Amino acid sequence: MTNQKRHNVAVVGATGAVGEQIIKLLEQRQFPIETLTLLSSARSAGTKIACNGQEITVQEAKPESFEGIDIALFSAGGDVSKALAPEAIKRGAVCIDNTNAFRMNPNTPLVVPEVNIDKAAENQGLIANPNCSTIQMVVALKPLYDRYGISKVIVSTYQAVSGAGSRAIDELHRQTKEALEGRDVNPDILPVGSLPMKHQIAFNAIPQIDKFEDNGFTLEEMKMIRETKKIMGDEDIQVTATCVRIPVVYGHSESVYVELKEDFQLDEVKELLANAPGITVVDDPEAQQYPLATECAGKPDVFVGRLRRDLNKPRALNMWIVSDNLMKGAAWNAVQIAEHIASERP
Amino acid sequence: MTNQKRHNVAVVGATGAVGEQIIKLLEQRQFPIETLTLLSSARSAGTKIACNGQEITVQEAKPESFEGIDIALFSAGGDVSKALAPEAIKRGAVCIDNTNAFRMNPNTPLVVPEVNIDKAAENQGLIANPNCSTIQMVVALKPLYDRYGISKVIVSTYQAVSGAGSRAIDELHRQTKEALEGRDVNPDILPVGSLPMKHQIAFNAIPQIDKFEDNGFTLEEMKMIRETKKIMGDEDIQVTATCVRIPVVYGHSESVYVELKEDFQLDEVKELLANAPGITVVDDPEAQQYPLATECAGKPDVFVGRLRRDLNKPRALNMWIVSDNLMKGAAWNAVQIAEHIASERP
Repeated sequence: MTNQKRHNVAVVGATGAVGEQIIKLLEQRQFPIETLTLLSSARSAGTKIACNGQEITVQEAKPESFEGIDIALFSAGGDVSKALAPEAIKRGAVCIDNTNAFRMNPNTPLVVPEVNIDKAAENQGLIANPNCSTIQMVVALKPLYDRYGISKVIVSTYQAVSGAGSRAIDELHRQTKEALEGRDVNPDILPVGSLPMKHQIAFNAIPQIDKFEDNGFTLEEMKMIRETKKIMGDEDIQVTATCVRIPVVYGHSESVYVELKEDFQLDEVKELLANAPGITVVDDPEAQQYPLATECAGKPDVFVGRLRRDLNKPRALNMWIVSDNLMKGAAWNAVQIAEHIASERP
Repeated sequence: MTNQKRHNVAVVGATGAVGEQIIKLLEQRQFPIETLTLLSSARSAGTKIACNGQEITVQEAKPESFEGIDIALFSAGGDVSKALAPEAIKRGAVCIDNTNAFRMNPNTPLVVPEVNIDKAAENQGLIANPNCSTIQMVVALKPLYDRYGISKVIVSTYQAVSGAGSRAIDELHRQTKEALEGRDVNPDILPVGSLPMKHQIAFNAIPQIDKFEDNGFTLEEMKMIRETKKIMGDEDIQVTATCVRIPVVYGHSESVYVELKEDFQLDEVKELLANAPGITVVDDPEAQQYPLATECAGKPDVFVGRLRRDLNKPRALNMWIVSDNLMKGAAWNAVQIAEHIASERP
């Protein structure tokens, strides 16, 4: 692909947990880069990051940082995207935004390539990357939706702390050490950095990710509900979510109950999933094989197992879906979209 | 209660995680004990355990150990119960069995005092203590069942390693230390001691508790399904369960979706639960208050929170149920039954 068109790429939030993964993936995928601009807050500017044999100095993100940029990948929080994505678009860039800022905006495509890459073409300079816990679920639901239709989804999540950023990873490690040594455990960040009450995550399960809405669901739960309908392009799918943070570093797991609209054979479901893009089926109860967070870390796929027919509803199915939240749940999905945009640019 | 009748009590499995809790509770509750016999395998016999200011030497459990025993509490595994409970019954004891050996036996009452203590009177020398994950769920479901009726329950669990015994606790601590120090993690016991494949529990979520059945559900999941129907006395309740082990030491958490048969008001549900025996409601989203495993450890109650009306089904409710699996899930439920038996003995 030496004659491939090359692009000026910017990564905003380059020093964060997701930004780091994006840079690694751009390198691994030999993304056709002309120039790579790494941007961050003023606090992290000056950091040096190696990519493609070069050392790149991270600069403070400003409106003029986007002059000449073709593709900008944002993962520095919603406020940064709100302030700077319009500036990047004004200067001709296509933005792929990993935050919640624009996801439910009717004019913003919300894209998971395995599900709705066709929507990317409708972008007006901005494509939103869905929430991590939504992405891995819709990848697994899509082949079932296409074959049988889906009426109802009930999901309970087992989410890794890396979804709350590098400081949450440090907090889990620190608290775990404190607990093992019998010392007081001092919660500092989780469940929600910007809220006053903190809870221990070491050896615990916290049923709160993001703020509460008035209906008693958290924003993370509402993201799963709203985004699933938008990505699948079907407002009639009933989704219920309970989102829980557990002491895992990388990899979200999900217990998912799905009611299909038509009868199914379990073997056919396994085959459909095994042949679908981006999915690896790990499902051999006799050999005690099923997806595990620790074994999915660092891998791009969505792993599905524990497939079993519901005992009450013949058209319902239970499954266990695991994926690395920083990979398919964030960086890899964004880079997939960027590759698509790059391949379509005139 | 100085003139209260006193009883000859035996604890089988006295050196195990649940046995230890039973002995502590008998002491704390000032159970009317005449003699306390502590029994174990030959391997643990000779251990000395303090209770009520006395040091008691644990003896190897044999048929003749039960001569003169009035009440025997078993938690030494199904095989021990199968071998020795009949011997204890033959000698006149009422056995309270914490294993899976007799739970689904049609002639054995399966008792959670808050739900069906009336069944205890039907015992033929044996009362079964349900599975830990079932007990805490039915305590929370019972007030809803009585008021509205229940048609369907879908539960995903977040279960503590202490449910797999003291060695699983040691394993979690050891693996966690190994992982924190960047060393190889060597799984040895979990998910199921008697099966060949072992998986890392530190910083992981394992969707297998107990062996798989042919229908793709694990025995733990089938216990929740079968036992819930038996305890609630209603074979028509549809139950679906996904049981998952997470890196928590004490306290099972459960994400539960319930379809009721009648309309409900959320305030009324909270009041019903708050006034029900054995339940503490912890449910204040604004103050970020909900049940947490770390805060429920060592306490006898079942803690319920995250109560919210389902967004799709007006008669459906979501909730988060947490309880100490060694307390209400095992030792405390057994001691409650023992107290009832003691109070009824002629």
